[in-house]
This record gives sequence, C-alpha cells and structure tokens, in this order.
Amino acid sequence: MITNVGLLGYGTVGAGVAKIISLEDSLLSQKVGWSLKLARATVRDLDAPRAFPPPPGLLTTDPRDVVGNPDIQVVVEAMGGIEPARTLILKALESGQNVVTANKALLAIHGVEIFAKAKECRREIFFEAAVAGAIPVIRTLKEGLAANRILSVFGILNGTTNYILTRMTQDASSFQDALFEAQSHGYAEADPTADVEGFDAAHKLIILTALAHGVLPSLKDIQVEGITKLDAKDFDFAGELGFTIKLLAVSARNPEDGLLEVRLHPAMIPQGHLLAGVSGVLNAVVIRGHASGDIFLSGAGAGMMATASAVVGDIIEIARLSHSAPAVGKPSLGWQSLTSERIKSPTEIYTRYYLRFTVHDRPGVLAAISGVFSAHNISIAQVIQKGVDPTGSVSLVILTHLAAEKDLQMALSETQKLGVLTAETKLIRVEDFARY
Amino acid sequence: MITNVGLLGYGTVGAGVAKIISLEDSLLSQKVGWSLKLARATVRDLDAPRAFPPPPGLLTTDPRDVVGNPDIQVVVEAMGGIEPARTLILKALESGQNVVTANKALLAIHGVEIFAKAKECRREIFFEAAVAGAIPVIRTLKEGLAANRILSVFGILNGTTNYILTRMTQDASSFQDALFEAQSHGYAEADPTADVEGFDAAHKLIILTALAHGVLPSLKDIQVEGITKLDAKDFDFAGELGFTIKLLAVSARNPEDGLLEVRLHPAMIPQGHLLAGVSGVLNAVVIRGHASGDIFLSGAGAGMMATASAVVGDIIEIARLSHSAPAVGKPSLGWQSLTSERIKSPTEIYTRYYLRFTVHDRPGVLAAISGVFSAHNISIAQVIQKGVDPTGSVSLVILTHLAAEKDLQMALSETQKLGVLTAETKLIRVEDFARY
Repeated sequence: MITNVGLLGYGTVGAGVAKIISLEDSLLSQKVGWSLKLARATVRDLDAPRAFPPPPGLLTTDPRDVVGNPDIQVVVEAMGGIEPARTLILKALESGQNVVTANKALLAIHGVEIFAKAKECRREIFFEAAVAGAIPVIRTLKEGLAANRILSVFGILNGTTNYILTRMTQDASSFQDALFEAQSHGYAEADPTADVEGFDAAHKLIILTALAHGVLPSLKDIQVEGITKLDAKDFDFAGELGFTIKLLAVSARNPEDGLLEVRLHPAMIPQGHLLAGVSGVLNAVVIRGHASGDIFLSGAGAGMMATASAVVGDIIEIARLSHSAPAVGKPSLGWQSLTSERIKSPTEIYTRYYLRFTVHDRPGVLAAISGVFSAHNISIAQVIQKGVDPTGSVSLVILTHLAAEKDLQMALSETQKLGVLTAETKLIRVEDFARY
Repeated sequence: MITNVGLLGYGTVGAGVAKIISLEDSLLSQKVGWSLKLARATVRDLDAPRAFPPPPGLLTTDPRDVVGNPDIQVVVEAMGGIEPARTLILKALESGQNVVTANKALLAIHGVEIFAKAKECRREIFFEAAVAGAIPVIRTLKEGLAANRILSVFGILNGTTNYILTRMTQDASSFQDALFEAQSHGYAEADPTADVEGFDAAHKLIILTALAHGVLPSLKDIQVEGITKLDAKDFDFAGELGFTIKLLAVSARNPEDGLLEVRLHPAMIPQGHLLAGVSGVLNAVVIRGHASGDIFLSGAGAGMMATASAVVGDIIEIARLSHSAPAVGKPSLGWQSLTSERIKSPTEIYTRYYLRFTVHDRPGVLAAISGVFSAHNISIAQVIQKGVDPTGSVSLVILTHLAAEKDLQMALSETQKLGVLTAETKLIRVEDFARY
C-alpha cells in the first residue's frame, strides 16, 4: 500500500518536505505502516534552482496534476499567498483529498470558509506548520490539552522580530542596526514589513485564538503593534527594571469580565519568566489550561527543515487516519465549533505600563506629570529619573500599576499640554502573566 | 451516543479524572462529539475520604464491574503498583476495552508484554500521564515529531528532586534540609527513596527511550544515580563556574559510535540553557529531531489536576478514534517496532567531569593530582583552589574536557593512593548538549 502525496509549490518548504520523504523512506514507512510517495509537485518555472533536487518527472506546471488527481490522497499546499492557494485547497477538499498547509495568512483570513468546506466534504485539513514551525503547538491545543478549558495563550510567534529584539537587548543595537544584521543573516526579508509590523505573528495569533477559544477574529478586531518604534534606551531601562522586551502575542479570557483579549505588541516581561529566555530566531508558546497549568513549548519557528518536520508529521497522521477511516473520522478539534464573539477593544484593556517621558530638566516636572496620572486614577508603581542629555533633557521613566488603556491615553494626551515634554513619549506594556 | 469510562482506583489521579469528567461535561462533549460518562470506579475501601466526592453508586470493590464490563469502552488504570494493575490491564485489553494508564513503573517493567497484548487485541493503550504529567511529551514523540529521526532526549523528569535541587541552588540548603522542606510541602513522601535515588525518573526515561529510539531497556541496563550525595559546597562551585545542577535524564544516540546512551544522574548544565531555568516541581524535556531541531517542553509533572489533564486528554482521543474505527486503526507509534539493542555501559560513556577533591593544604598536591590525570590522558579544562577549612583542608575543583568514565574512575582510584586526600572526592558530570 502507498499513500501518494502531491505538493503545491516546490520552494523552501516544498523542498524540505521532498527531502524528508525521499531520504527518510524507511523511518516513515515504519511510522505509517506503509510507504509515503511524493507523486507530483507543481511549480511556476520548471527550471528554477531548487534547495533539494526533485526526482525526474516530479515537477509540473499544471495544478490539475495534483488537485483532483485521483492517485493523490494528500495535497500539501506550500505555495503561500492567498490565491490561487485558497481555490486549490477548496478544490482538493471537494475532490476528496486531504490537505496539509503551512499557510497562516490564508487560514487567518479564510479559515472559516476552508474549515467549513473540510467538514462538509468530510476531509481533513492539518496545519501544524502554520504556527511556530516545528513546535507542536496545534496538536497540543487540539489533543494534548483537550481536557482543559484554555485560559490563556502567550507566545513569541515571529523569529525575525525575536532575533532583532535579542540583538537590541544583548548588544544595545538600534532597531535599524539589528534589522540590518537580521537581513544580512537571512533572518529578515528585504521588505521586512510583515514581520516587523507584526502582521505575520498576528495571523498566527488568530489561528491560536480559534483553537484555544473557538473564535477566529479578523485582523481588524485585534490590537497589533510592531517593533519599529522601539528605542535602544528602553532596553536599558527594561534591564534595570528586571524586564526583557519581547513581541508578545496574547489570547486570553479575562477572568474578571469573561471577555476575550487578543493582542500583539511589544511587552516587558519579567527576566525570570521562561519566555524571557527565548532568544534569537526561536519561537515559544505558553498555554494555560484550567487543569494542566502552564505548558511551555519552544523551538525553531521557521526554516526549511523545521517547517518540513511539521508538514510531514501532519502527512503521517493523515495517512494513518485515512487508512483507519477512509472518510476521516477524527474531526479537527476546536474548528468544529467556531463561534462569533466580541473581542475586547484595545481601549477596554487593562495592563501595567512602562512610560518614558523626555522632559526639560527643571523643578516641578515630576509633580506636574504625576498630577495628571493621579487625576486619571492611574497609580504609579515606580519612577526612575536620570541622565541629562546634551540638549538639557532628562528621561523620566514611570511604571504604572494596572490601568485602563483609555485612561492612560487621556493622561498621555494631557501631559503633552504641560509644556514640559521635549520628545515623543514612549509606551511599552508590562505583562503580568498571573492575571489570566 | 455515550462513551463509558471505568476507573481502576479512586485516589488522587482517579479523583482528578472524575472531577474533570463531572464538571466539564459540555467542554468534553464538544471535543468528543458525544458524552463521556464515568460509569464505575473500583476502590479497596468504599468509605475512605476522597479528594473529589464520587457520585452515588460509582464506587465498587469488584474490579469485574469495570474490567470486562461490556458497557465500559475505556478503562483508566489509576491504582499504581505492578499487581493487580498488570493483570487487570491485560484482561481489559483481552475483553476488547481500550486502556489509559499513568503507571510508569508498570510500563517500564512490563511494557513489552502490555504493548504486545494491545497489538494482538487491536486495542489501544495510551499513557500520556506516565511521563511528565500534563506536558504532552508522549504525543510529541509519537505524532508531532513523527517525521524525525530522534537524536536525543534530555529531561528533568522528577518534580521532587527538582524542588530539592532548586532549594539547594537558591538557598544554599543541605540535601537533608531541602528534603525536609519538600516533605513539609507535600512534594516528597515520607519514604522518599523512589524519588531521590532516581528510580521514578528512570522509569520515565525508559518509556521515553522506547518512544524515541524503539528500545525498552531494563532498569539494570541503564546508569541511575540519585541526588542523595550532593553537597551544598558543589552548588556554590557550580554557580561560580556558570552551571546549575539538575537531575538529568539522557536518552541519546551517540553520533560517533551510533550507540545508545541512556543515563540518569546529577549533571551540571550551563546556566543559559533552557533546562537550567526549570525550577521547583516543574518537569521539562528537550527533544532533538533531525529536522525539527530542539523542541523544549515544560510544565507541571505531577499533581491531581495536571495528571488528570493528561489522562482525560487520552480518554478523549480514544473515544474519538474508537468511533471512527471500532478496532482502533491508529496504532501507537514507536511501540509497534520495539527492538532489542545494546545500551552503552556506564564505563563506555564519555562526558566532561566536575571533580572536587578535599586535600591537605600543602605544596605539590595540585601537581600530584594533575599528574595522575595526565597519565590517564584526561585533559583538564579549569582548576579552582580555595578556602582552607578549620581542619586545614582545601577544596580543589577540577573541570575536565571530555573523558571516558573508565579512565576517569581509574584516575580517581589512583588519586586515593597519593596520601593527599582528606575526604571523599565528589564527582558530577557536566553535560554538553551539542554533542548529540
């Protein structure tokens, strides 16, 4: 018996999948119980250079050699982008093929449609590689922690930004220098927008929210803030205050009002927290279940072989399931029951805040600013004032207790009218993991 | 439709399972697709106090109300110990029931027999809770990393000893004081032997070895060393050298000779390694796959609800699988293909070593000891000598490069003949994770 696999796309991910299936034949046969065979792979250009040389006859430019080909049981979508990936996946499901994809943007945007189609066609769509690469976070949410109400998921979901933040933490680099270094190592693309503005991580956060809470929010419903405005100075102060700055993804049900918070933004996290130790291009996730407590997972979030590890793991599971129950009988958990639910708007969210004001070095400034905070019912936990720069300005760092974003923004806008600020005020949220 | 679950044992684990199934009815129904019902639970004493009150009529003293009861599809063995657990599990499989167990000692000792029986009867045995509590390490090895050759597994697999070592690291406690503290918090039993001598962790290591490498070694084949001989002084030196001392489980294929190393012993690990940050009663595992790279998992390794989280996760998966394929068609990975393979004997293993000699404070001692090392071809990486104690002895700490245990033991025995030692020499292995 043979399970035939068809690839849509033979770029980095496709080549990695081909490499594992070609070189680990006996391992995979042992796991599945029979052979996996790579049957066809679609590409745009038959003659482009490849990271792993395809066997003769594998490549084709016609997607119909894969999608709807009755000899192919599992279709791996490894082309990326929205179209034609969406249409091809829908067609594959309609043709009775099972699908594996690593396409987070597609699932985040069209997940509801695609999963409804899979259910309708009684076919399976697996997507372990879409979030956090080789780390089995999807399986952990779907299966390992199935007995739990999921209280919160915190994650570092983008390796490019984590590399940049690690450099800024360890070498006191500027954002621009760290980005340039990431680009020179191949960790960041020439146009780094999707990574540094947070969109890539936000797509993964949307998928995790669906699995954890049964809701697939739109990008516009969630708070997304990238790392481009972070300043080397704030990394200094973070260290002094016992924090590390990370681009943190949060999907949590607030225990006080029962509402979902889904947000992605730079956050100061305590240096002793396991997430603070996740450095370089690694990804990590902490899932809190009502029975399990915190489960922490970390590892490679991207790269040819790490992504292929997750894709081929999915292929193996589908191959085995489809043998035992030809119309796959093990429905994807979580997606079965997607509901609509209001996500808390950013202004409704409470966190602690780190604020760095750049102010004139003269008497009364601290009193004026702290007066504004007090008027808005924002309680101050800690203050650091130091360093006069050549222009005569000083940094005034304030760490607040829990405060409403709405109150905080009003207070900040009032501080602008005091006539004491000499530069833009920097704001970084301080995460208190114990609250959820 | 209903899946009926029968419990063997209603102690801490059984009560936790009952609590989740009773209180999270709608969550579980949504995940499974129909209801899970706790049908019967066997106990020795119907009137003993219980951590979660059983519904009327649940308890019985007759195991035949569970094992072989045609109304019960899933049997959860939560009684512990070897017999009658072994016999009851075998009977349940023969009766066509699927089994979930958290019994690591039973699987480590009788795994070959039990898994052969499951295969013969085409029934499933799941055991996520047997290793590292709520952490989905079994699923990750079986499924998430199925596409990988597993190169190594490193783990902190016993919460009691990790708590003791954390106290010794953070508070400079003696082993006895830290053990007493663990006992007073309920983290260690009155007779702590199974934990502090390493047997509990060794059973888990045997199970991980079966999943990672397809070999189920006997306890006598592997190197097991507990933490009872660790001295507060060595935690001081460890910190000075940039290490943390952990009770480390290792199951790795040595890339140089292709042989399996399976060992459990105190180890110095670099403070920057993620395992060094695993403190208190937490457990953690790092799995290195050829494609995935290092996947790190940590969380609660024990406790009523954490263990129940893993058990009920297994029940959910079995309930769904057995619906789609009544004779479960998804065979347990890894166990399918258990083979026999020689495990490297302790004397064949190379590691780096931390050695603390207690010596007379007089000239020539360092030269004499280092001469012995040199004669045995053991290369010294670092030396610290300091502190004269009231008896006139000093501590001489030597960190070696990679050396064979056999050579090292010969060298140590020669140093005893030099007439310079005033106390027993302490040896702790230094782990170099990059070697595997």
